[in-house]
Amino acid sequence: MVRVDGVFDAERVAVVGATEREGSVGRAITRNLLEDFAGEIVPVNPNIDRVFDRPCRDSLAGTDADLAVVVVPPEAALEAVETAGEEGIESLVVVTAGFGETGSEGARREAKLEELAAEYDLGIVGPNSLGVISTPSGLNATFAPDNARPGTMSFMSQSGALVTAILEWAADRGIGFKDIVSLGNKAVLDEADFVETWGGDPDTDVVLGYLESIEDGRRFIEAARDVTEGTPVVVLKSGRTDAGAKAASSHTGAIAGSEAAYEAGLRKAGAIRVDSTEALFDTGAMLAGGSVPSADGVAVVTNAGGPGVIATDAIGDSNAELASLAEETRERLADALPATANVHNPVDVIGDAPAGRFHDALEVVLSDPAVGSAVVIACPSAVLSFDRLAETLAAFRRRESIPLAACLMGGAAVEGAAETLAETDTPTYFDPTRAVRGIDALYRYREVRDRKERSPTQFDVDTDTARSILGRVERRSDNRLGIEAMELLDAYGIPTVDGEIVDSPDAALAAAERLGGDVVMKIVSPDILHKTDIGGVEVGVDPADVEGTYESIVTRARNYQPDARIYGVQIQDRIDLEEGVETIVGTNRDPQFGPVVLFGLGGVFVEVFEDTTVRIAPVSEPEAAAMIDEIESAPLLRGARGRPPVREDAIVETIGRISQLVTDFPAIVELDINPLVATPDGVAAVDLRLTVDPEKL
Amino acid sequence: MVRVDGVFDAERVAVVGATEREGSVGRAITRNLLEDFAGEIVPVNPNIDRVFDRPCRDSLAGTDADLAVVVVPPEAALEAVETAGEEGIESLVVVTAGFGETGSEGARREAKLEELAAEYDLGIVGPNSLGVISTPSGLNATFAPDNARPGTMSFMSQSGALVTAILEWAADRGIGFKDIVSLGNKAVLDEADFVETWGGDPDTDVVLGYLESIEDGRRFIEAARDVTEGTPVVVLKSGRTDAGAKAASSHTGAIAGSEAAYEAGLRKAGAIRVDSTEALFDTGAMLAGGSVPSADGVAVVTNAGGPGVIATDAIGDSNAELASLAEETRERLADALPATANVHNPVDVIGDAPAGRFHDALEVVLSDPAVGSAVVIACPSAVLSFDRLAETLAAFRRRESIPLAACLMGGAAVEGAAETLAETDTPTYFDPTRAVRGIDALYRYREVRDRKERSPTQFDVDTDTARSILGRVERRSDNRLGIEAMELLDAYGIPTVDGEIVDSPDAALAAAERLGGDVVMKIVSPDILHKTDIGGVEVGVDPADVEGTYESIVTRARNYQPDARIYGVQIQDRIDLEEGVETIVGTNRDPQFGPVVLFGLGGVFVEVFEDTTVRIAPVSEPEAAAMIDEIESAPLLRGARGRPPVREDAIVETIGRISQLVTDFPAIVELDINPLVATPDGVAAVDLRLTVDPEKL
Repeated sequence: MVRVDGVFDAERVAVVGATEREGSVGRAITRNLLEDFAGEIVPVNPNIDRVFDRPCRDSLAGTDADLAVVVVPPEAALEAVETAGEEGIESLVVVTAGFGETGSEGARREAKLEELAAEYDLGIVGPNSLGVISTPSGLNATFAPDNARPGTMSFMSQSGALVTAILEWAADRGIGFKDIVSLGNKAVLDEADFVETWGGDPDTDVVLGYLESIEDGRRFIEAARDVTEGTPVVVLKSGRTDAGAKAASSHTGAIAGSEAAYEAGLRKAGAIRVDSTEALFDTGAMLAGGSVPSADGVAVVTNAGGPGVIATDAIGDSNAELASLAEETRERLADALPATANVHNPVDVIGDAPAGRFHDALEVVLSDPAVGSAVVIACPSAVLSFDRLAETLAAFRRRESIPLAACLMGGAAVEGAAETLAETDTPTYFDPTRAVRGIDALYRYREVRDRKERSPTQFDVDTDTARSILGRVERRSDNRLGIEAMELLDAYGIPTVDGEIVDSPDAALAAAERLGGDVVMKIVSPDILHKTDIGGVEVGVDPADVEGTYESIVTRARNYQPDARIYGVQIQDRIDLEEGVETIVGTNRDPQFGPVVLFGLGGVFVEVFEDTTVRIAPVSEPEAAAMIDEIESAPLLRGARGRPPVREDAIVETIGRISQLVTDFPAIVELDINPLVATPDGVAAVDLRLTVDPEKL
Repeated sequence: MVRVDGVFDAERVAVVGATEREGSVGRAITRNLLEDFAGEIVPVNPNIDRVFDRPCRDSLAGTDADLAVVVVPPEAALEAVETAGEEGIESLVVVTAGFGETGSEGARREAKLEELAAEYDLGIVGPNSLGVISTPSGLNATFAPDNARPGTMSFMSQSGALVTAILEWAADRGIGFKDIVSLGNKAVLDEADFVETWGGDPDTDVVLGYLESIEDGRRFIEAARDVTEGTPVVVLKSGRTDAGAKAASSHTGAIAGSEAAYEAGLRKAGAIRVDSTEALFDTGAMLAGGSVPSADGVAVVTNAGGPGVIATDAIGDSNAELASLAEETRERLADALPATANVHNPVDVIGDAPAGRFHDALEVVLSDPAVGSAVVIACPSAVLSFDRLAETLAAFRRRESIPLAACLMGGAAVEGAAETLAETDTPTYFDPTRAVRGIDALYRYREVRDRKERSPTQFDVDTDTARSILGRVERRSDNRLGIEAMELLDAYGIPTVDGEIVDSPDAALAAAERLGGDVVMKIVSPDILHKTDIGGVEVGVDPADVEGTYESIVTRARNYQPDARIYGVQIQDRIDLEEGVETIVGTNRDPQFGPVVLFGLGGVFVEVFEDTTVRIAPVSEPEAAAMIDEIESAPLLRGARGRPPVREDAIVETIGRISQLVTDFPAIVELDINPLVATPDGVAAVDLRLTVDPEKL
């Protein structure tokens, strides 16, 4: 942790590769550092005596710096890092490229860099980084042509070019930052380190990140979960679509995790995910204000009906809701506004409203307990001064903590107003839909901040039995187990449909008689994957036909694949599907985030509707309950068309037990219970498939 | 038609209410008109002699104007309109408010205005309009503080304030317009008139509209269908969400049509729908270029990987696709670019690329036959001149018709470049996602332009029988018919499940014997809506039990509702649902768009998944086929999980026949066939419900 703080809090910065050579990166960085930095700059370059009138040192040795910025070629950079380690300079920014992003020689260098960092306990940004900025001390250790204005957003970016672009763009808009870091190859310090650091930084109101990959999903979740209780974290994660993911991996060499796991991981971390550069900053600017709505409703106050309707549509699409104003509020508005004004939300103060009328309407509206935030929309008119309106809004912001978004629908005339509003951390937008997107972020963050965390339930399970069942896979070449491993679920307390595996027609009949009524019969063979396709499943077999059916199922299987190993036939109770709903509970392992648990509508609908949702294990009870809420077909479980509702608590428990199973046994690569039939009485697993890595048992 | 042209082509414009009075609307309009207009201005005001040094006329009489702009109070405005009619002044812009938007007195005035328009055949914009602009003649008959620059976009807006805002915003961005009209209350001229006019205008490349309602859906569709073959029409229709629709109707008094009908209507019209102000203009700016991609693929050429990945994600979400570059293209790129460049799409020319390297890459990429358009992304760098890059792109645009979007990720430094590009109708964006949204609009428009129009099939049907069956409703108090009206479907050639209605146990048995096998039995009563709930339906009745079941169904119905009229019991063939899929085909009538036809997944899933889609009747074969493509559960119809595919042609035909039925009989208010079972052999309607308006028979 100390290692990251050192990057931004440095007081004496050495520049390894400082130079005046025109057009060089070293010159750009040295100049940027000399421009505004409140601390000391120590140029290091053994080939020259002075840089910009300052004496040059030959090496980092004896510089007594607390941060070294390295811009020399790769091998020299490695030497500099080693010297830094020896000298006790714990923080470095390695701007030099030619490491992991460039083939095997570069990968070797990056490994060496990691070794040095571990040996000397160094905090290294990069390599292949554009650099870092920290506005309180005026530190600009980048080679970007623009510097940042002071502000309360801290921004990390896995693309250096994006930092350059954002700096130039923000400069024109008066958008400020606390710290900025170009993450580069993330050989040592990664997104989790910066989230953690900024979470503890009182000067950072919101953390923004552009990420193409997450190095260690579990560590990121751990770090961000704590941070997001007090500081919002907004992430633009690219490589979202198949095409995007391919583009991302070809250009950074990062292995992109699967999209569903990223979605689940960012959710668990409490990060607010956005999908464009503008959304990142629209959202960031609103959250930088630091106020969170205390009520659900958004008020819209406008001098023009049309944009008010557009904003209302956007609120309808958002996580917020249009505030329903109290009768008393509407009466007070009617008193305060002209007769033709609309006193319902969106409140229309009419086109001839001066700033004072906005003030009067807001005074009333903001006192309504249903109103937690407001979007103020102003179109240009002869009687409205944007500057006066901005002063009015700024005064409200100074007096109350209620968040406001200003939608000033003008051109150059709004610039002064935007400046005034920026001083009270009130963002300004042109487009009503974007203003609402800003407000929406507040509600998204409020949900994260207020979420109820619960530790996952620890169930009493029989791990020894489970281990021995998983061990059976060692006798299989394909590492798979099927319905013959249903006792695995028994060992973890997951109800299975009653049944047994038999190896003769006699035994089949005995089993059917024990179960009573019609039964389901399925071939049990590790070599037959799609049992139904080869006639290996019979549903609703009358006990009288059980012996004959046994013979025909086995015959069909042998005809289909003469060398198949046949373990017998499973005889199962037949579940009445008129009363039940087929669901799926499954799990697999993501390279970045580890085990994930999936729940959704089962049977044929898994493929057709893909109505499923994913969480990172371990899954707590509230998380499992949210999974049920989230699937589109939840009404099917809750008594659609007069059917009795199923026992959701049994589904929640099953999700929790599967989460525990996959956490207990890293050997489980993937596992599907499909269907898990949910009924008004509980759940029962009907079929099972899993893949096990015997090396990890 | 002439009446609309007259608005924009006026050569002699009278201003009724011209004045110099400070702060008045009349002064603002007079000043705007005097500013740039190439024609003659005739001030009209009986109370003063001169306005801005021009002599004032007492009335419109003898002005010989071809357009009158009216800004006097409502009653005087009506007088002016009447005088215009008498004088043969066929075009008017009524800026005056106080008409339909303000209660009953205003509504009376608006009706009077409509009468005058009809009597004298006048083309009237407004009332309650901000005015009109036409840049070729310099006509600015608005009271907005800004004027428009010349361009190829024509814009109509149901919100005057939005026009003011857009004018101010566009002025700063160099965005130009051909014509602009503030529609006001649309008492006479509406969106359909302007779409038609601009469709025939060689100087309009794209029509943009902000609409809160559509006056006459059928007429709008007729007008826009023809226009969109050659000119794209982009519409921001607000009041989209429930909350938004409420806001819209409270402020304009317009009755908002249902969202699904608007969606279907705009689609049939060929309009491209967007959902924010920015999207309207991002899209408009791209379409204003006039070029349409000739190949599906989008190439991305960038000097920075990160924004390239962001763009790739956006392409994945769009109607376009990332172009797959030919091997030859990649080889040529490898020759033209440095070794570290990425020659796969997105093509990364690397951060040290000057404008010339973009040129070299584009030269190769644009010659690949898979590439139909390109997004060029440039982040600021020491070696890249945005101005040089803009000249390069402009040269490509002049030479080839291939559309380009420029994503220039800088601040003030890109302004000159944006100007250069605007001259070749190449829009500039900061955000990669918005640049792709622009490109996406081209592909959306290409689909509209190339859609295959086919007249709806005219089926040979028995309208006489249908009329007599619909006539039965006259004996019902609730205007409803049910399964007893299944012959209505027979009359229109829609297969129904075989069956008959019987009124005795004997007849039931005879019917069951004729059908053979198990049957389905349903109570037939106009007073029992939910047959299943009262035990009025029995599925899979063995012929031996048919007589007894008849008695028990009727008894249950009588017990449930002693005074219910019971017409008998329907005996139906039992359809094997293992082979079939339950779908729904229905229709209802929208106030704006008339009869619409719905298709989707039937049974319990109608409510749970709402997996349905709607088209405006009449529905042609390609439209009906597209409806099937569009539902999420289409795979269920197409053989998911090894089931045989159903006969889609039979579904298409049923949709066409229902479309014909509802078009033939305006008396049909709504109708549902649910389920229509689709099987590999065809379709069969199993249940029917409809509501009939006997007055329209």
